[in-house]
Amino acid sequence: MQFDRHLMIGGAAVLAMAFAASPANSAAGNASHDKVVAAIKADQDAAIERLRAWIALPTIANMGINTPQGAEYMRQLALDAGFQQAKVVASGGVPGVFATLDAGAKHTLAIYFMYDVKHYDPTEWSSPPLEGKIVERPGEGQALVGRGAVNQKGPQMAFLTALHAFKDAGVKLPVNLVLVAEGEEEIGSTNFPTLLADPEIKAALQRSVGVMMPSTGQSRDGSVSLDLGAKGVIEIQLVSSGDKWGRGPAKDIHSSLMARVDSPAWHLVKALDTLVADDGFTPTVDGWFENVRPLTPREKELLAASLPKDEEAVKKVLGVRRWIQDEDFLTSTYRLASQPTVNIQGLVSGYLGPGGKTVLPGRAEAKLDFRLVPDMTKAEAVEKLKAHLAKRGFGDIEVIVSGGYSPTESPEDSMVVQAGAATLKKAGIEYSLFPRRAGSWPGVVFTGPPLKMAAGHFGVGRGGGAHAPDEWLLVESSDPRVAGYAQQAEAFVDYLYEIAREAKTSR
Amino acid sequence: MQFDRHLMIGGAAVLAMAFAASPANSAAGNASHDKVVAAIKADQDAAIERLRAWIALPTIANMGINTPQGAEYMRQLALDAGFQQAKVVASGGVPGVFATLDAGAKHTLAIYFMYDVKHYDPTEWSSPPLEGKIVERPGEGQALVGRGAVNQKGPQMAFLTALHAFKDAGVKLPVNLVLVAEGEEEIGSTNFPTLLADPEIKAALQRSVGVMMPSTGQSRDGSVSLDLGAKGVIEIQLVSSGDKWGRGPAKDIHSSLMARVDSPAWHLVKALDTLVADDGFTPTVDGWFENVRPLTPREKELLAASLPKDEEAVKKVLGVRRWIQDEDFLTSTYRLASQPTVNIQGLVSGYLGPGGKTVLPGRAEAKLDFRLVPDMTKAEAVEKLKAHLAKRGFGDIEVIVSGGYSPTESPEDSMVVQAGAATLKKAGIEYSLFPRRAGSWPGVVFTGPPLKMAAGHFGVGRGGGAHAPDEWLLVESSDPRVAGYAQQAEAFVDYLYEIAREAKTSR
Repeated sequence: MQFDRHLMIGGAAVLAMAFAASPANSAAGNASHDKVVAAIKADQDAAIERLRAWIALPTIANMGINTPQGAEYMRQLALDAGFQQAKVVASGGVPGVFATLDAGAKHTLAIYFMYDVKHYDPTEWSSPPLEGKIVERPGEGQALVGRGAVNQKGPQMAFLTALHAFKDAGVKLPVNLVLVAEGEEEIGSTNFPTLLADPEIKAALQRSVGVMMPSTGQSRDGSVSLDLGAKGVIEIQLVSSGDKWGRGPAKDIHSSLMARVDSPAWHLVKALDTLVADDGFTPTVDGWFENVRPLTPREKELLAASLPKDEEAVKKVLGVRRWIQDEDFLTSTYRLASQPTVNIQGLVSGYLGPGGKTVLPGRAEAKLDFRLVPDMTKAEAVEKLKAHLAKRGFGDIEVIVSGGYSPTESPEDSMVVQAGAATLKKAGIEYSLFPRRAGSWPGVVFTGPPLKMAAGHFGVGRGGGAHAPDEWLLVESSDPRVAGYAQQAEAFVDYLYEIAREAKTSR
Repeated sequence: MQFDRHLMIGGAAVLAMAFAASPANSAAGNASHDKVVAAIKADQDAAIERLRAWIALPTIANMGINTPQGAEYMRQLALDAGFQQAKVVASGGVPGVFATLDAGAKHTLAIYFMYDVKHYDPTEWSSPPLEGKIVERPGEGQALVGRGAVNQKGPQMAFLTALHAFKDAGVKLPVNLVLVAEGEEEIGSTNFPTLLADPEIKAALQRSVGVMMPSTGQSRDGSVSLDLGAKGVIEIQLVSSGDKWGRGPAKDIHSSLMARVDSPAWHLVKALDTLVADDGFTPTVDGWFENVRPLTPREKELLAASLPKDEEAVKKVLGVRRWIQDEDFLTSTYRLASQPTVNIQGLVSGYLGPGGKTVLPGRAEAKLDFRLVPDMTKAEAVEKLKAHLAKRGFGDIEVIVSGGYSPTESPEDSMVVQAGAATLKKAGIEYSLFPRRAGSWPGVVFTGPPLKMAAGHFGVGRGGGAHAPDEWLLVESSDPRVAGYAQQAEAFVDYLYEIAREAKTSR
């Protein structure tokens, strides 16, 4: 994921029942289902080896590493899992993969995969990032360590393991599948909309009841949060320079000249100052709130229901003593879900070392991100920001949009959400519906125009360290509330049956 | 010098007469003077060797290199040059040196030396920084390259060479001398006031007619600018942090949390915004202009007289297209000399690399310098800044004062200025009186309380590269308008005679 969706903000209550022990775990409650589950168990060791082999071939988009190889590998993984056709598709950037599995079912589910991973520095890892070594995770079980273990090869391989099991057991899938995979998720999915606009792919998606992205969704206590949406984000660098301004110096000059030469750094500070109110957080970009939709009573209800019990623990993890305006936890949670933000990620100008140095810098940069809530859009936000700056005499400041997308949301009653909820409920796993993550993911490529499909993550199991050293995925769980690799695959089997059931009742 | 006084801001007109060829060069116009000049010529090679040997022993205060050795060496140099007593004096930091030369004259001149140098990286130099190699400088002559060549061992050794010549020629000095030398100039002369407060040293200084610091003052065209003063400066780092604020995070956290967690970076931006007006340059710290003294008609006259002819050349060197408010060159020069400034040297917060990174930084720092004009003082400025911030709710922002001092000025009719002017005039060297440098040097240790003495730089000759690789001093000049090493020493001889003459007429 480019942005950390998995940030612990919400949470969930203690499990009602243990996962593995649940008699309701057999979602379909029939012999076919049991045969598939048995096939997963038989395949487990081989499946872990397949995950290891995939991890050993990292595709890193911003470094151009294994881009054609990663696409071809993805294509082969799909074919091996039972997709009847799979092809590499040019996107203008790193290629994508499109595959279909026709099970002769009435309904079709779309699956979204990413085959790229974040870069890594082996010297920071305690075991080699491409080896997928199994290590003991005290109190939790056995974990596989490797780049992509949780983000996103691990859960995706667990989904493919579910498909292998159907094949091995000779059981027909309850739904047809359409797979779209990209190799640029970690650099902002820039070319993914182009890929989705391919007529054949678009038509296949439009036949589908929704889009599911396999994920590893359990917290330490076993609970799962099913997200109904996430804020959008734009990442922007504002650059003030003597060159572009036509005032101030072209390079760093002696600081005494501040008495006669304009300062690009002050120019930037004055521009920044207009973007938020004096409270230090309320955005003041012209028209910023025009399309901000307030939380509905239902969204507030869901937020209240998923409020973590231990506010102090949440604060402690973040190193925060007070929320904005000293608000109580629930009010602050409403703010978190409902408010657009203008954040300073970084400030860079002139001398950066210890102490001081007598220069007047020729350039100053502010790195910002703007989180967007429905019904704001990325295009609208960029345009408003530019107009706001230009109107106030800051039109010379470069607005470099380095990434981003609009907010995403899927209805609570959509099939992908309801199937996920039903699967968890039957497995006795505590879950909550979370209206909107404050972090971001590019779900809008599906939920926004032109597709306007419901899209969401689903998955049990547990992992961590996305984008960090020692990324891990739990493969054997010693905690009955938490799924290991085989149960992760089982949950996907159940999910497919639930999708078929939901589709039948609602169409 | 800690701050670059030598910054080319002013300039001077073409020389009226060539230096070396001037018949008026013999300032005293008597046989004794001629004997001293002859002794300089005879000593020249040995003098250059003495400079080389001094350069070979660099004292670097911030690295603790050669601090006692440098002081002892300085003491010995003084004794060798004819000072009858010289001693190393503890200052609380790197020791200083105090020496006296009683010539039985009626008047006493104080001399200020620094024996420390800036650090250096030999790999950046084209000849070894401690060797003092002689290299050809195309169109200018032969230059000695080494750390301290111009800042400040070269001109100081030229002054000592003048004293050697008096001794060698058996000629009595026309004035008594008091020497104060420090070894911490490059780190802000922190302990120098303590040293000057020593009762014996203070008394000796108070007997003196003024303080002269030997320098290398000629531009490429041979002209010299005699400075009457310089702005003061304070270097300050403002640090906003979640820790000190009690709001915001203790460390960098995920940027989505901007919706519920206060931002130390925005806190800093809001604080900075209050320090200058929306024009981006006028200081708005409460009471900042209370003690700002406007330029006098005479100061304006001097600034106009020293205005460089080629404004475009000055702009080109700086990479500047327009002065503040599109002012004409003279108006902008008045502003440069008269206005206090609040400059941003650097901004440092959060993510500093290419593109963006979704963090909300726990810390933000602005590196600032404030240039002060008479009658502002450092203490007043620091106090006003702190009060200003506290009054506006920014009292938590750390104000780290990493260096600085009050402005310095000496009267145009002071002996050190008048003797310098008379020396240059008789040598036929074009010069201008410059009312106030926009850059800074700590002359206030002499010109401010308690001593309140006139103090200024004097010297001919040419050099460059202070604080930079390949620092150089011209030792043989191929341009008749510019002095080499021997003429540099000669000018100091003349200067001492002029001091004696000025002192006689004015006391």
